[in-house]
Amino acid sequence: MLKNDNLLRALLRQPTSYTPLWIMRQAGRYLPEYNATRARAGSFLDLCKNPDLATEVTLQPLARFPLDAAILFSDILTIPDAMGLGLYFAEGEGPKLERPLRDEWEVRNLTVPDPAEHLDYVLKAVRQIRRALDGSVPLIGFSGSPFTLACYMVEGGGSEDFRHIKGMLYRRPDLLHRILETTVEAVIRYLNAQIEAGAQAVMVFDTWGGTLTPAAYREFSLSYMTRIAAGLIRESEGRRVPSIAFTKGGGLWLEDMAEAGFDALGLDWTVDIADARERVGHKVALQGNMDPSVLFGDSSAIEREARRIIDGFGPHPGHVFNLGHGISRFTNPDHVACLVDAVHGAHR
Amino acid sequence: MLKNDNLLRALLRQPTSYTPLWIMRQAGRYLPEYNATRARAGSFLDLCKNPDLATEVTLQPLARFPLDAAILFSDILTIPDAMGLGLYFAEGEGPKLERPLRDEWEVRNLTVPDPAEHLDYVLKAVRQIRRALDGSVPLIGFSGSPFTLACYMVEGGGSEDFRHIKGMLYRRPDLLHRILETTVEAVIRYLNAQIEAGAQAVMVFDTWGGTLTPAAYREFSLSYMTRIAAGLIRESEGRRVPSIAFTKGGGLWLEDMAEAGFDALGLDWTVDIADARERVGHKVALQGNMDPSVLFGDSSAIEREARRIIDGFGPHPGHVFNLGHGISRFTNPDHVACLVDAVHGAHR
Repeated sequence: MLKNDNLLRALLRQPTSYTPLWIMRQAGRYLPEYNATRARAGSFLDLCKNPDLATEVTLQPLARFPLDAAILFSDILTIPDAMGLGLYFAEGEGPKLERPLRDEWEVRNLTVPDPAEHLDYVLKAVRQIRRALDGSVPLIGFSGSPFTLACYMVEGGGSEDFRHIKGMLYRRPDLLHRILETTVEAVIRYLNAQIEAGAQAVMVFDTWGGTLTPAAYREFSLSYMTRIAAGLIRESEGRRVPSIAFTKGGGLWLEDMAEAGFDALGLDWTVDIADARERVGHKVALQGNMDPSVLFGDSSAIEREARRIIDGFGPHPGHVFNLGHGISRFTNPDHVACLVDAVHGAHR
Repeated sequence: MLKNDNLLRALLRQPTSYTPLWIMRQAGRYLPEYNATRARAGSFLDLCKNPDLATEVTLQPLARFPLDAAILFSDILTIPDAMGLGLYFAEGEGPKLERPLRDEWEVRNLTVPDPAEHLDYVLKAVRQIRRALDGSVPLIGFSGSPFTLACYMVEGGGSEDFRHIKGMLYRRPDLLHRILETTVEAVIRYLNAQIEAGAQAVMVFDTWGGTLTPAAYREFSLSYMTRIAAGLIRESEGRRVPSIAFTKGGGLWLEDMAEAGFDALGLDWTVDIADARERVGHKVALQGNMDPSVLFGDSSAIEREARRIIDGFGPHPGHVFNLGHGISRFTNPDHVACLVDAVHGAHR
């Protein structure tokens, strides 16, 4: 049924005839058609919560580029929103939560949302996207990691120093664990609901785990990601559903991450992919890891850097090409076309 | 002459009876007396450019805590300012440069400032601080790394994505090298002028090198830091002047950094200091590496984390305790006292 299963094969370290690729935030502000849809939707949140429009923007990059996967268009803060923390986007400021968790009673009152009830708009989008894709490429579902979600839930938004959550971590680790216990259950139910609705692979984004010490990372981020890996539905529609874990800034901890039970690890660009493969590539597939800024360069720089990564990984199966972080809104879409050609054209 | 030379000894991997410590940004906004002096000075820049007041704030943390070093109070952007790029501080926004380098002619016109002429206020502060310290503890001088200075010089201020400098790196690497060639000469002259004025150790802060790929880090940051190490005055007042290099987020590249010719490497908190010592501790001393957020915890958390780092480094000579980044303005000074006690009281 799936015409192009290269992504799923590579994530399971099965041979593919070329290196498959997709791009984090491939449906995003660097595409004029995305900006047009978003303007029609009203706010970013309206766009996320409208399954028709979420389907539309999910498919936009695939109409332009022969990418090897679609990724659900959504926001990582849908879970805190479903928990009743009040997600909103302040103009030009990124996501915020109206009711951040600061007091013990707020933490004790936190409950696991039922995806069918509180996140139905996401599941509808997954089903619609699958229908629209019609078996052309697989659909990736995703969630934020428990620690990353907790960062937003405690800070109330992005942060430069994460002083509220880290203050809690070093003063009241029991409270932070309580938040993470509830959140990890929410993430497992959410990802499994996405799989049941049609997601063919899932990714856990641990955007902020890399701000921790190695010991705190293991205790407050990785241990919960390990529970996610153990709790995921592993097969759907007769195929294995591969899982990917990505901790931005986690390059020092790949050995530990490779034991967490995911099929693949995402890499940011600060790690040399040849070293990463040597360290963990016999256990997991690797996804990454071009600096998104390379797309500000000319075609020769893009081709050279893509080549360097593909050659660095080497001829073994198990590499999905991607950027090491979301694509910048300032990227010229023609440069993305150049990258896709370079990756697909590279002999392995 | 120097009553407490533990810092200098530890940086040269000579035995000390306890682990010496100082704290990045130890003269700063977490101290009420600092805020009072700054209010008297007018702006942050006025404070940096007034040798009397810079001396006053440099000494403030030493009056409170038995720290093992003073560090010159200054800003890393004094060099771009001396180059004529127009440093200013927008309220609540951090440092900005009025005339960022974007065009080729601007880069070609960049020249190396003479410290005696354009940075005399810094050298005056160094001499005054030395007199005021009266041999109690050594004085550390510092500079930003060429790449970090170039980030500000090209971006015109801080950045989330460094798209201007990275665009230059991937489109016109020759132009970026031209900036770095001029800047590295400026840094060497500046640090040597600080040493001649009385700095007894020097540190190079590479705040943004960690945003690069490993290959770009070696080419655009580390190679210039290596030139600094080679160009520094190594002895003054009959003693060796130890040098420290710190790349925030550089934990993956410690082996390369250890070859750059510095006596010590600074570590942020994402690397386990026991691993770091195993990887490079036979070549260089190590400085670090507590998460500044631990100081938001209670005394038992502070003592436990300090102990973990000291035990992790082990009983060998060559460890200077520090935070892994500048102390937060939201830190309670009593918690700093607790940290100093914990480090000085720990048996090695």
